[in-house]
Amino acid sequence: MAADLLLHNALVLTLEPGAPPIPEGFVAVKGGKISAVGPAAAVRELPPARQSLDLAGALVLPGLVNTHCHAPMVWFRGLADDLPLKNWLTDFIFPAEGAWLDPEKTYWGTLAAAAEMIRGGITTVADGYFFETEVRRGLAQAGLRAVAAQGVVDFSAPGVPDPRDNLKVAADFLDSGAEFRRHGVTSAIFCHSPYTCGPETLTRAKELTRARAVPFFLHLAETRSEVEEVKQQHGLTPVAYLDRLGVLDELTVAVHAVWLTPADRELLARRGVKVSHCPESNLKLASGVAPIPELLAAGVCVGLGTDGAGSNNNLDLWGEMSLAARLHKVWGRDPTLLPAAQAVALATREGARVLGLDGHTGTLTPGKEADLIVVDLNQPHLTPLYDPFSHLAYAARAADVRHVMARGRWLLYDRKLTTLNWPEIAARIRQDCRGLASFCQNRRRP
Amino acid sequence: MAADLLLHNALVLTLEPGAPPIPEGFVAVKGGKISAVGPAAAVRELPPARQSLDLAGALVLPGLVNTHCHAPMVWFRGLADDLPLKNWLTDFIFPAEGAWLDPEKTYWGTLAAAAEMIRGGITTVADGYFFETEVRRGLAQAGLRAVAAQGVVDFSAPGVPDPRDNLKVAADFLDSGAEFRRHGVTSAIFCHSPYTCGPETLTRAKELTRARAVPFFLHLAETRSEVEEVKQQHGLTPVAYLDRLGVLDELTVAVHAVWLTPADRELLARRGVKVSHCPESNLKLASGVAPIPELLAAGVCVGLGTDGAGSNNNLDLWGEMSLAARLHKVWGRDPTLLPAAQAVALATREGARVLGLDGHTGTLTPGKEADLIVVDLNQPHLTPLYDPFSHLAYAARAADVRHVMARGRWLLYDRKLTTLNWPEIAARIRQDCRGLASFCQNRRRP
Repeated sequence: MAADLLLHNALVLTLEPGAPPIPEGFVAVKGGKISAVGPAAAVRELPPARQSLDLAGALVLPGLVNTHCHAPMVWFRGLADDLPLKNWLTDFIFPAEGAWLDPEKTYWGTLAAAAEMIRGGITTVADGYFFETEVRRGLAQAGLRAVAAQGVVDFSAPGVPDPRDNLKVAADFLDSGAEFRRHGVTSAIFCHSPYTCGPETLTRAKELTRARAVPFFLHLAETRSEVEEVKQQHGLTPVAYLDRLGVLDELTVAVHAVWLTPADRELLARRGVKVSHCPESNLKLASGVAPIPELLAAGVCVGLGTDGAGSNNNLDLWGEMSLAARLHKVWGRDPTLLPAAQAVALATREGARVLGLDGHTGTLTPGKEADLIVVDLNQPHLTPLYDPFSHLAYAARAADVRHVMARGRWLLYDRKLTTLNWPEIAARIRQDCRGLASFCQNRRRP
Repeated sequence: MAADLLLHNALVLTLEPGAPPIPEGFVAVKGGKISAVGPAAAVRELPPARQSLDLAGALVLPGLVNTHCHAPMVWFRGLADDLPLKNWLTDFIFPAEGAWLDPEKTYWGTLAAAAEMIRGGITTVADGYFFETEVRRGLAQAGLRAVAAQGVVDFSAPGVPDPRDNLKVAADFLDSGAEFRRHGVTSAIFCHSPYTCGPETLTRAKELTRARAVPFFLHLAETRSEVEEVKQQHGLTPVAYLDRLGVLDELTVAVHAVWLTPADRELLARRGVKVSHCPESNLKLASGVAPIPELLAAGVCVGLGTDGAGSNNNLDLWGEMSLAARLHKVWGRDPTLLPAAQAVALATREGARVLGLDGHTGTLTPGKEADLIVVDLNQPHLTPLYDPFSHLAYAARAADVRHVMARGRWLLYDRKLTTLNWPEIAARIRQDCRGLASFCQNRRRP
């Protein structure tokens, strides 16, 4: 049985736990899945294939997994920076979302975000926002594997003017997701946080996702003020409070998880809660540094996320990898913390586990779907090469990604997008962002 | 008088203090210098020029200034990571430098480093290493503006087997620099640190540079153990100790400056000492976080540096900009610290001041030499555009640099190197690094 496609003569990292790099490796793809991976010193050792691609001088690894994004927030990239979180949200983001955002802009923003993510080697993204049907449509069109989660808050939100409808909208979103599931897009719910969603909303949203065995996301313990607020209101840390509500389990993804007590960390581990670590956003908003080495030591599964371009301001998982690998060393005063290979694992294999997609993606393992990227090694900043994990964590960048395949389909080939029309998207974004700029200019005036 | 070259129809950032972006701007170059900068809404408003380049959709800004590098250490990129500084130095770097490095490898390593820096928009670099005559030759060949500083330590070093010769080698290096000065390369001295150079070495090296009015570099207060060691030996903090030796002045560049007391900061400000901030390296080695907002508030002039690829592991100043702008926010618990425009200024104008080159480079000012870069804005991660400073600090990357000009000469044009032959350099590095890999493999064995 010949494979559909054979990628060969590359340095291959399967990202299976402990697996060494394969210097002259191949990856065979058949029916959208990985059918074989291995070394082949000579062409005659390769399995038969209908098509083959010689990748001399390149590195093949699993596609990156972005465990937290608000894709349409690319509209807000650089709109207002270097502000306290509260000013940023209440003076710019919330008003703009309320008065300016609509389903169509959400859709086009999603396409722009998808273009950026694909160019940077992301093949799977977990998104949480409003008008999420539009996000889901955009991500499916882009060909990304995704978990699209409808946003829920207990106040008026884009597409949900009356917060009493928030769970109905979310339930409808879940129920309309079957067709998208066939295209690799899971539908889920994203409760904004324990301070913007009441206990009833949190428990009912969790029930909706639990009944369908899909992930439940929420921002958790992002800032010290959140912790203080929840403590004051409920007498418990945010983690303990959520545990009392019964919403912590293996299908819960806690995003940020910055301000945790040792007891919180143990509780997250015991409940099997997954954590999405977004260090670039956490630093830019001065939220804090999540205790990732401690969470990993406690056995918590951690992935990396870009957060939205409104707070980051990019959707580049290479930056998160590099920052995660560096930041925890200085924070923990130990240069052996979060070594390169572990940072790469968080961005791939562990990210897939965070989203419950490890049966489908995250490693180059026969039987999994073909989500993979090809990195061009013939560049000054990647020369010489002693250890590919080191280069991926500390030197490689989004622009080094030459090809991207998700679910057996090329999304980027020779650095060109195959599923998205960037000039059309860019024209749209450039035209409509003027209205947003004026809207904010007017707000700045007294 | 027609200009030699006119860059027009671009978004221009002059980086002059407080200057707003020029949306439809031009930069005219004549005789290697900037002859005019301004807005021009129509082609007929442009000054006459023999050649012109329409830069629609691009951003023009001063070339980046890397205030600290050990260029030849690209040989050690990813050779040994995630280790305590002491192990990394004594088990890998020092033995490799001693037994393996030679003048020719130093030269080729410099060319590889130059290729990386030029592709990332660096037009000025301050380097400190051994066999610095080879580094100086390589940087001049690459066409970079540079301050090349001969390394000095009080023990055996590459090219200086007998440390009693270290200042003689340094003085000879300074004295052989006249021709290079005409090519934009200043010769200087880099004393490794106050714990590897004795008081006599430090004062005599400073005298040599002071007599020639060139910068004197040293690693200063990089780690807590350095501070402890100096305190134990001299009863003073490293900064106070150096001040007692009389080596702190406007032409001294303190690299790292992580562990400073408030009195140290005041002393650095009073003496006019400049600081090179290398956050990526400081994090990776778990050295600590330099008090940059406090130094800036005290009036100290600060620039950014990549450090060497052995510890970073890249020579990308965009990463330093993004990290500096983010890190100090979380460290100081204040999201308004080190805003985007300030981070961009540190990487350009302030870097030039650190090196005493602000009369020549660092801003797009008529009369200064033409050191400038062109950034391609038509990319998903730079769309939409509200504030170019925000994009430069938080979203742009080395690969976005399309053209690079130093001293009026293109070093990169349409992303192609014009002064360096990358295939030849790469082949050389790839071949010779095998020997280094074996050397280290053998050292790892018991």
